[in-house]
Formats: sequence, structure tokens, C-alpha cells
Amino acid sequence: MTEFFNVVMPDRAIEIISQRLPGSGSEKTTVKDSIGRVLAKAVCSTETLPAFTRSTMDGYSVRARDTFGASYTSPAYLELVGEILMGQDQHISISPGEAVGCFTGGMLADGADAVLMIENTSISKTGLIEVFRQVAPGENTIQRGEDYLPGAVIAEAGKIIDSNILGSLLSAGVLDIDVTKRLNVAVFSSGDELVAPDQLLTAGKVRDINLYMIKTMVEELGMDTTLFPLLPDDFEIQLAEATKALSECDAIVFSAGSSVSGRDLTAKVFESLGSPGILVHGLSIKPGKPTILGICNEKPVIGLPGNPVSAVTVFKEVARPILLHMMGVSDKSVRTVSRCQLASDVSSSSGRTDYVRVKVVIQGNQSTAIPVYGKSNLISTMVKSDGYVVIPSESDGIYQGDLVDVLLD
Amino acid sequence: MTEFFNVVMPDRAIEIISQRLPGSGSEKTTVKDSIGRVLAKAVCSTETLPAFTRSTMDGYSVRARDTFGASYTSPAYLELVGEILMGQDQHISISPGEAVGCFTGGMLADGADAVLMIENTSISKTGLIEVFRQVAPGENTIQRGEDYLPGAVIAEAGKIIDSNILGSLLSAGVLDIDVTKRLNVAVFSSGDELVAPDQLLTAGKVRDINLYMIKTMVEELGMDTTLFPLLPDDFEIQLAEATKALSECDAIVFSAGSSVSGRDLTAKVFESLGSPGILVHGLSIKPGKPTILGICNEKPVIGLPGNPVSAVTVFKEVARPILLHMMGVSDKSVRTVSRCQLASDVSSSSGRTDYVRVKVVIQGNQSTAIPVYGKSNLISTMVKSDGYVVIPSESDGIYQGDLVDVLLD
Repeated sequence: MTEFFNVVMPDRAIEIISQRLPGSGSEKTTVKDSIGRVLAKAVCSTETLPAFTRSTMDGYSVRARDTFGASYTSPAYLELVGEILMGQDQHISISPGEAVGCFTGGMLADGADAVLMIENTSISKTGLIEVFRQVAPGENTIQRGEDYLPGAVIAEAGKIIDSNILGSLLSAGVLDIDVTKRLNVAVFSSGDELVAPDQLLTAGKVRDINLYMIKTMVEELGMDTTLFPLLPDDFEIQLAEATKALSECDAIVFSAGSSVSGRDLTAKVFESLGSPGILVHGLSIKPGKPTILGICNEKPVIGLPGNPVSAVTVFKEVARPILLHMMGVSDKSVRTVSRCQLASDVSSSSGRTDYVRVKVVIQGNQSTAIPVYGKSNLISTMVKSDGYVVIPSESDGIYQGDLVDVLLD
Repeated sequence: MTEFFNVVMPDRAIEIISQRLPGSGSEKTTVKDSIGRVLAKAVCSTETLPAFTRSTMDGYSVRARDTFGASYTSPAYLELVGEILMGQDQHISISPGEAVGCFTGGMLADGADAVLMIENTSISKTGLIEVFRQVAPGENTIQRGEDYLPGAVIAEAGKIIDSNILGSLLSAGVLDIDVTKRLNVAVFSSGDELVAPDQLLTAGKVRDINLYMIKTMVEELGMDTTLFPLLPDDFEIQLAEATKALSECDAIVFSAGSSVSGRDLTAKVFESLGSPGILVHGLSIKPGKPTILGICNEKPVIGLPGNPVSAVTVFKEVARPILLHMMGVSDKSVRTVSRCQLASDVSSSSGRTDYVRVKVVIQGNQSTAIPVYGKSNLISTMVKSDGYVVIPSESDGIYQGDLVDVLLD
């Protein structure tokens, strides 16, 4: 038997490519438009936040010691000397035995160190505040500076901006930030048998779905895509289009033609495209062995297998970490993992990393991963399953009842 | 102590609102532009897919029985009578003892029932194919119809279209689908103390972040938003803006003013807006108790607490399921859960559902959820944590070492 590939472990392949690639660079953007972008550097607060000690309840700001020992059977009594309205720069001082009305989120009186919840008070016949519960100093308040002091890190470099980070930045008055540049990824699909999904399917032809599936997966990473026309199995045409893509885009993803038969042209195209060229041809994985990884003119060139299930798996396991690395993001931060109990044994070959598609079924408190049988290269398995389990190369298989991490689609 | 609210359990509150709301309706869209949209009805295949039996390997299509017993020590010999090129409607028949070259994804010869991998063959001195391994009928092929037969369901109603569903639809030549209409959600934030994040912060004022955080969370659900100007604590202005929103949008989300003090206007506004008005005021949860849920003119009106951490929690736990229900989606399908071991005890009050923010730390094979201490209403806790754990109302707390499900942000 002939071994056509000099296969490489996927983690090593990612490292070989990633360590030679430059980052995507950075640019300014407004925080409001930054959802999904990646922080190019840490953002620190320049302010003390909150800027003033705030009440977390509707009630009365008081000196805590004036309430000590108060209970329903033995209330304390305080005199109401004013109310601080929301959003006003209003200062009222209190002396022992006094209280000032306050609202959730509002300021306390000068001299007050705690807030009495209105629910724990009533107004006595003589107009005094009857206090049924003692409060400790600081109770029902957020102290000035408790969120951020000047210089405190709000969000670290490499973080993808979500609603929580956006809110924290805006709360500190941060309006503009440095984010890494979005990659523009050229996407190709090749093969004489392919027709676009909206074209008439004639005998012997197959509808191409890889172009749109890869486009979608790239865009889900917050990157842009440039789609190229379907390529025939013609070296000159492929090289011309790839050359155009290399000059216009930041990375190239090809699907199909990544194996080693006479009709597989991707390797030949990548080798003619720029230096250093192909660095990895063949991964010790299933599915996805016929994968090509290289660098041409400081840009990654990635050849995925043509089988859609293999292409999706290799994209997620190998292409995604490489592209995210260029944008300063750890692949782990975009993966969603569900810990499940395996429903049945799955065998595997030692020396090869296997990706086994599974359906996740949640019953009560237990998540179960059911291997999706049927050939791994059926398109329908991708909809029938929810993700996949990785069986590491040193393992001969995983067994019914094992706890496994499902990488969710 | 006065109980201001007639509190309702969150699941019951969602049910009260959801069951009275109409769906968002449906519309046609092209599959290519459907990522993130929701299928309004199941899509079935009208075709047999694959349309022809395909090879999954480069090699030779053969009659399996001609290879039976073949091995390295005792090869079988076959005569090569042709090659079927990719994408051609090309028919070659084989007789016993014959083989025809084929490519991955390509057609088999008429009369062939299996594919020999090229790696398991060589060419003999006399030009015959030397076969070193037997193949079973069907081996290294995908049978015609193995993906979808006519009438088979490709994707169910209520599914959010992702790259896998998109690919499956396109593979079957489905170009247009019925999806539920996107909701347009009106978002408001109110309070005399608020200034927009890009405005000068003066004493006693606080930057509003809820408008943009809620906008982001709504848009992450594949819905549109209409942002309204920050509202002062003025009933007439609030009612005028809400009336405009109710006529223009499909749902209204207010933040702040949802409690029961004199300055809380949301309830009064919702009651004046349309019938039946408020159906729930107060949830048995922490944080998030002061929440208002109602329906005006068949549209949901949702009043979230003003505290950003509470607003985010109630949005995810209560508003999101209601809005998704209108679009035909189960809330479970958008939740991401990580099973973790709890790092320390967390107490809770029975009769109330508690949401406790946690940081998830993965060490080796074990995910640990570390409660994020500090007051739950600090904005910074949202960035310091990765999600939250739900402590059900019947529980008094959860304990160190418990396995808990973290709902990831």
C-alpha cells in the first residue's frame, strides 16, 4: 500500500502555519459599532466608576449606626429631612437621627453610609420614619469606585466584543477603541462536476454547497468574504483566479482538489502562487486527511477536502484557529462545548484524530451524545447531528457511558 | 414589611404572555440570504440525493465479488477498460474481471457495485490492475438516495438556519424558503439621571448603557431594533413615545421605571397604551424582581429593571423566550450551557429563583464555575463572569462540588 501523504497532527499543523503569519493589524472603531470585533489592546478605565456612591434600593439614606438594634418589636425612629431627586447635583447633609429619601441608582445624603429599604419602614403617626430592620454600613449601596478605579482593565486584548463588554466600555465613557482589522477571505470551490445550486442539474453533475457553507462559517467569525466563481479542473484558470485572490484578499480557502490524484490541482496552484508555498499536505485526521496548508506572500492558503462534511470539519478544526490567530483571537473563545455521556461505543484508529458527529439529547439533568451512524460524508448527517466529538490520536476509541465534550456546531 | 408585588414564577410569566401573542407571520426569502432566519415550515426534498451512486475514493469501480479473497500475498487481477471523468454523463459497462477508473465524488461504471481505493492497488507489468484488498458490495460509495429520498424532511419548522442547514437545502436545489418575519423591537431607556454615553457626564448623572446592551441582545436573536431617545421621568413624554413605538414596531422593551415607587412610570405608561395591558408585575427572581410584562394591542410590552445586570438577566430569562416564541423558536435552541463543578457554596432563598453569575475556568478535563463575588449589580461583574447559574425556587442553595449548568453569555 502506498502512503501518499506525509501526515501531520492537526495541532502541529496549526502551529506551523500560525507562527509564520503576521497579525491582521488594527484600526479604530466606535464602541457602538464594535459588536463581534476583537480588541487589539486592553482598554482601561480613565474614571472612577460609579462616580458617586449609589443606592441600590428605593428608600432612605441613613447613618447605619442610627438603625442598630431596630426591629419590628423595637423600631428606631428617624426624622425625614429631604429627598434627593434622580440626576440632580443636589447635596443634603444629615445629622444623627435624620434620614433623606433616595431612589434606586440615586445619590445618598452627605453623612449617610447606608440605605434603608422602604419595605422595612413605615411612617409613624407623628410623621417620623419607623425603622423595622437595622442596616450595616454600606448596605444597599454601591460605593464610589466599586466598579472601576482609574487604570483598571475593563476588557483584555483579544476579547470579542459582546453586549457585556460593550456596556462596560460605554459605562466608562469609552467611545472609540482599537480593534483588529477584519480579514477578507477569498473562498473557492472547484471541480468539473459542480454546478451552482441555482443552475440546472444535469446528469453526472452535483450542486456545489461548499462555497456558501464556507462563506457562512467565515462570516460567523466576524470576517468578510469574497466569493469567486466555481472553478473547473483547469490549472491555468485556477492559478489566474487564485493569483487575483492573493492580491485582493488576506487569506485563501479552496475546497476540493486537495488530494494527490492527477485531477487534484490545489497543491500545484498553491505551489505556483508564492513563497514559501505548501507547508503541510495531509493531516492525521478522519475525516479531512487530504488537507493542504501553506503560506504565499505572508497570506495563508488553505485547501480543504471537497466532501462537504470533511470540509466543514477541517474548517472548524484547522482553518478557523489559523484565521482567528491572525485576528488575535484564541480559537477556544469561539468554541462551544457541551459535556455529555456517550450513548454507545465508538472505535477509532490509534495514530489518527477522529471527529465523530453526534446528536445531543437532553433528558432531565443528563445530556447524552448519540453517535450519528451512516456514512460520515452524507450531507444529511450535518443536520441530523448537533456537533462532534474528538477522539484523540492516542485513543483506540471511546466507550458507552464515557463523559465526552461535544463541540457544538 | 410591605409586599409591593404579587410576584409570579418566571416560567409561568413567560407562559402567560406567550400564549396570548400571535406569531410574527411568514415571508419568502432566498436560501442564500437566510442565515439566522427561522424556518416557518418544514422543508422536504423533492429529489433523490445523491442523484447517482458516488465514489467516496479515488480508485476503480469494480464488481465486489471480483475482489473477494484478494490480499498482498494473493492479489486479484482486473482489466482496466476505461475511466469516468468528473461531471460527465458518461456510461461505461463492466463485465466480470473488469474495472473502470473513478474519482472521489464521481460516478461508478454500470455493473460496478463497489470502489477499490487506488492505495490498495498497483499496475502489474502486463498492465493489469493488481488488487491487494477485497471490497464488500457498496464499499467506498454513497448510494443513490442515501442522503434524501423525495419527501424526506431536510429541516424542521422552527429551526434557525445555520451553515449546515443552508448547505443541505442548497444540495437539494431548494432556493427559496418560508421564514418567520423578523420582529422589529422598540427599545427604550428611561430616567432623569441618564445621559447618552457620548454626552458630557455631569454630577449626579449616569451614562445609559441599557439602550445599547438591549439593542445588541435583540439583534443577536436575528431581530431588528428601533432605538428611541432617552426618556425623562415624565409620563406624558413616555406615553407619547411608547404610543409611537406601538404603532411602528412589533414589541416594546423599556428599561428602568419598572418598580412601584412614585417615580416608576412604566406600569402607568403600559396601562395607558392598549388592552389588556399589564399581566405580570413582579417576578419571584433575584435579580430582576421589578419586571413588568403585558400585552397592548396584541404586542408584548416588557418593562425591565434599570439596573443593567438585572436588565440583562431578565432579558435573557424572560424577554428572550417571549420574543423568540413570536418568531416560532424555542428558547432552548439559542441557549448555550456548560456543565461545570461549582467551586464554592452559594446560598439562596427558597421561593425565589436566583441567578448567580460565575466565571468558568477549564483545567484539563474539568470545567469549574467560580461564583463572581461582589454586588450583583456592578457592571464590571458582567465582564468578569462568563454566564450564570440558575438556583431554582425550591432550593436553599447549591454546594461546592455540585454539578451545575452554566448558561453562557
